[in-house]
Amino acid sequence: MRIRQEQYNDGKGETGMSRMVEIFDSTLRDGAQGEGIAFSVEDKLHIAQLLDGLGAAYIEAGNPGSNPKDLEFFERAKRLTFKNAKLCAFGSTRRCGADAASDKNVRSLLDACTPVVCIFGKASELHVQRVLRTTPRENLAMIAETVAFFKEAGREVVFDAEHFFDGCLVNEHYAFAALDAAAQAGADTLCLCDTNGAAYPTGVFARTQQAVKRFGDRVAIHCHNDTGLAVANSLFAVDAGARQVQGTFIGFGERCGNANLSTLIADLQLKRGIGCIPAENMPMLTSAARALAEIANLSLPPAMPYVGASAFAHKGGMHIDGVSKLTCSFEHIDPEQVGNERRFLMSEVSGRTTLLAAVNRVDQALTKDSPQTKSIMQKIKELEHYGYQFEAAQSSVELLIRRQLGPYKPYFALAHYKIITEHPVHENIDCATAIIKLSVDGITEITAAQGDGPVHALDCALKKALVKFYPELAQVRLTDYKVRVMEPRDATAAKVRVLIESTDGVSSWSTVGVSTDIIEASWIALVDSIEYKLIAKQAVIA
Amino acid sequence: MRIRQEQYNDGKGETGMSRMVEIFDSTLRDGAQGEGIAFSVEDKLHIAQLLDGLGAAYIEAGNPGSNPKDLEFFERAKRLTFKNAKLCAFGSTRRCGADAASDKNVRSLLDACTPVVCIFGKASELHVQRVLRTTPRENLAMIAETVAFFKEAGREVVFDAEHFFDGCLVNEHYAFAALDAAAQAGADTLCLCDTNGAAYPTGVFARTQQAVKRFGDRVAIHCHNDTGLAVANSLFAVDAGARQVQGTFIGFGERCGNANLSTLIADLQLKRGIGCIPAENMPMLTSAARALAEIANLSLPPAMPYVGASAFAHKGGMHIDGVSKLTCSFEHIDPEQVGNERRFLMSEVSGRTTLLAAVNRVDQALTKDSPQTKSIMQKIKELEHYGYQFEAAQSSVELLIRRQLGPYKPYFALAHYKIITEHPVHENIDCATAIIKLSVDGITEITAAQGDGPVHALDCALKKALVKFYPELAQVRLTDYKVRVMEPRDATAAKVRVLIESTDGVSSWSTVGVSTDIIEASWIALVDSIEYKLIAKQAVIA
Repeated sequence: MRIRQEQYNDGKGETGMSRMVEIFDSTLRDGAQGEGIAFSVEDKLHIAQLLDGLGAAYIEAGNPGSNPKDLEFFERAKRLTFKNAKLCAFGSTRRCGADAASDKNVRSLLDACTPVVCIFGKASELHVQRVLRTTPRENLAMIAETVAFFKEAGREVVFDAEHFFDGCLVNEHYAFAALDAAAQAGADTLCLCDTNGAAYPTGVFARTQQAVKRFGDRVAIHCHNDTGLAVANSLFAVDAGARQVQGTFIGFGERCGNANLSTLIADLQLKRGIGCIPAENMPMLTSAARALAEIANLSLPPAMPYVGASAFAHKGGMHIDGVSKLTCSFEHIDPEQVGNERRFLMSEVSGRTTLLAAVNRVDQALTKDSPQTKSIMQKIKELEHYGYQFEAAQSSVELLIRRQLGPYKPYFALAHYKIITEHPVHENIDCATAIIKLSVDGITEITAAQGDGPVHALDCALKKALVKFYPELAQVRLTDYKVRVMEPRDATAAKVRVLIESTDGVSSWSTVGVSTDIIEASWIALVDSIEYKLIAKQAVIA
Repeated sequence: MRIRQEQYNDGKGETGMSRMVEIFDSTLRDGAQGEGIAFSVEDKLHIAQLLDGLGAAYIEAGNPGSNPKDLEFFERAKRLTFKNAKLCAFGSTRRCGADAASDKNVRSLLDACTPVVCIFGKASELHVQRVLRTTPRENLAMIAETVAFFKEAGREVVFDAEHFFDGCLVNEHYAFAALDAAAQAGADTLCLCDTNGAAYPTGVFARTQQAVKRFGDRVAIHCHNDTGLAVANSLFAVDAGARQVQGTFIGFGERCGNANLSTLIADLQLKRGIGCIPAENMPMLTSAARALAEIANLSLPPAMPYVGASAFAHKGGMHIDGVSKLTCSFEHIDPEQVGNERRFLMSEVSGRTTLLAAVNRVDQALTKDSPQTKSIMQKIKELEHYGYQFEAAQSSVELLIRRQLGPYKPYFALAHYKIITEHPVHENIDCATAIIKLSVDGITEITAAQGDGPVHALDCALKKALVKFYPELAQVRLTDYKVRVMEPRDATAAKVRVLIESTDGVSSWSTVGVSTDIIEASWIALVDSIEYKLIAKQAVIA
């Protein structure tokens, strides 16, 4: 193998791409096989648009033959339009002895009406005999006939050669015969799968090179991470000429997960000089990864290359000193290239620099060393220690700054709220009722509302009481509501953090509340949401 | 590069090692630089013994010159004896212009009284000029004199050539001159560091081979994971002849972390045929990784190769079917080789094989094709479509099976519950009150309890009402409570899924509930938790 592109890119930008590869994202299919991952249809539609916006060329979104949720997804996805991506449905070859045109799974795949289908078939003779329990010849017919069926139906076809690398060790001739069967039937892409995730980069390089020699520019790679080598194996396949890289955006997948595309996209684009998404989208990489983790309700591992919260965090004094003198001393790229940011963990200075930007939005005269800035920093540290997290709740930070800087006049005063939840409920009555009493400029209002649950009822009652005084609140609605239990080992007496996102149809904002009581945590975030809207209106008038 | 050892090891055991490499663990030094990692001295002593027990050859445990905690550690470690490992203290070369013998950091390193010291020095001319701000010549003198000082003091010396790979791109001659300086002063090991974590395996291979040609069998490798290649880079250095691999046991470290030794040990020993810890210790790998995560108070990432909880977890129906027929079909090794275990996850994609195992625990006579099995599967799919997720709630699955198979007699009948949450609350009163009315065998019980929040109050009231009838419930308590908002875009009217984990002090079990009302979702999971405990007791008696 030739030693190529050893050169270290210090973040000064690449000088043009030597070639392009396609990103084939399987977060919604192979990623959904990961433990703890369960996407709703809404989640899937949201993720597909996120990946399209980033610039993935293919989005493999599910197996319509295997479950009703994927069927519903493909039905609803017919109404979506994509900027960059082609939608792909995944399924197996026809069953042994069946006819492709009448095979139930093949039909569901066809009915998904996607421009691309991905057909997987066995490339290991061992699996044909021991798992599929059919003859090597019948397996090749299953591959060829299924691929041909979809080509005749006018689809672009990706053939996933399952266990290709392991299969080469069992019977190399047969592994390539499986590729031949798909190629001769017209498959547009032949994907070499390291299904069990135990291949080695040099082996992947050699086998991919062999396949590229035989089939030209239609080879793809699909790696799993069982030995920690999915990224390296994928890169070596690209080095050997693969045109397409399959993976999942933040590495979700069965067992140890799939090749992490957020890492691969950055490695290819920023380190290897190989284009894969539009260059102007690279700074979206971090926010896309975080949004995906949020939708999956998982925390993005802080140490994830490029996109993790710690990826450019410096803790050692010598590293902080080095980066202060010369950023590339301990940073392999400029974090802004991938939309991430540098953080100095041990240093007050970095904390205050970030905070200062927020403080100056309220009062431009304050500096990093003003006592007010220091006291706001102190307050934020106390709240973070209590369990608050402000990264995703900038509106709560702004309110905190305004309240600390004073004079701050709240828009209403709560006298009391009471929520009653009961079970069973009478017909036509919601299960939760909230009663609220509050006053605005000395005028008291008492009202009640019902909802699907206690927080919903409280939200409805609060808005109902206030809209009389502030009609603009009629436009405000919550668009997102998230709950994190923070010390789960204290079980139901643990602290919870509630994050809510609100919109008035024009802009949107996020607020946060923390308490051992989920209702109180929600209340704090709801109040911030409403006050933020009212302040914003005032600011516009002023 | 020659293509070597492509051969796939299917878990049948290795046939003898081709050579040995040393494992140099820096969890206690470089690992402690990771965000969120803060070891106490007790933690460090505990971890050192854990790593020694596993068979690490070197344990780098801290920088005695940089913080008092490490100083205390080395003081106390003098009383420890190790079976396999040599303890190593870490520090920099003498300062510019200083004398090694009187340099403060050099003295603390000496005073740590470890058999091995690791000295780091700059191998990149850029860093010498821009960060260290001294002359290239002085830097070489700093390296040589410090190494010589410790050799004269009778220590084994590892020289860490910081930024070696990046330094080669700046000035290859100088990077090797730094190694020469250390070698000529008697360093026992010359460690090539990819400090910023952006090297590429082929580059690492070539540079390591160059170093091995020049210095023979005393080259080590130290990689960071900023581009997702730390494991691959370390393996390629070993392929090129490196004798020692540095890393941290479960990958902790500055920014994206260090090379993960738990992955590397297994890759080397089980895949590459290169010995690094005693073969009989391999089954300790998983428990050691989990113990270390516990001590660090972090969850071990479930997808971590070899040792993660999901590393051998199968969710897709076809994978479960495959593994049932032939374990190596979707497992690259036998999980027992590393002390991990195979798990079949219950889910919409998992198919009937997994479910059958659960069904057979209740009724051994049923088969995959029994109508009862099919109707249970149908019920599970419906519930999953509604928002349930069973893979983390096996006890709810068992109850569902029992209820579907019938006859199932619930342990109590709920008449009514009512929860009142209010704000502000009076002093000495909890914010939530739950009133519950239920009956057991026709006897009605009504009671109330207060709590930190509505769910806590309901949990307390339910147990209080039932413990009269079932005294064994007094031992049951919740240990974990998780909330997932499923369609956050419906905001507070969205469905929530509640997962709870309970224990009676002996065993523990998990249950799940889904509703648009968080109280009702919690109620469903609480009821399952209690019924499961009562069934389990009955089963023991029967």
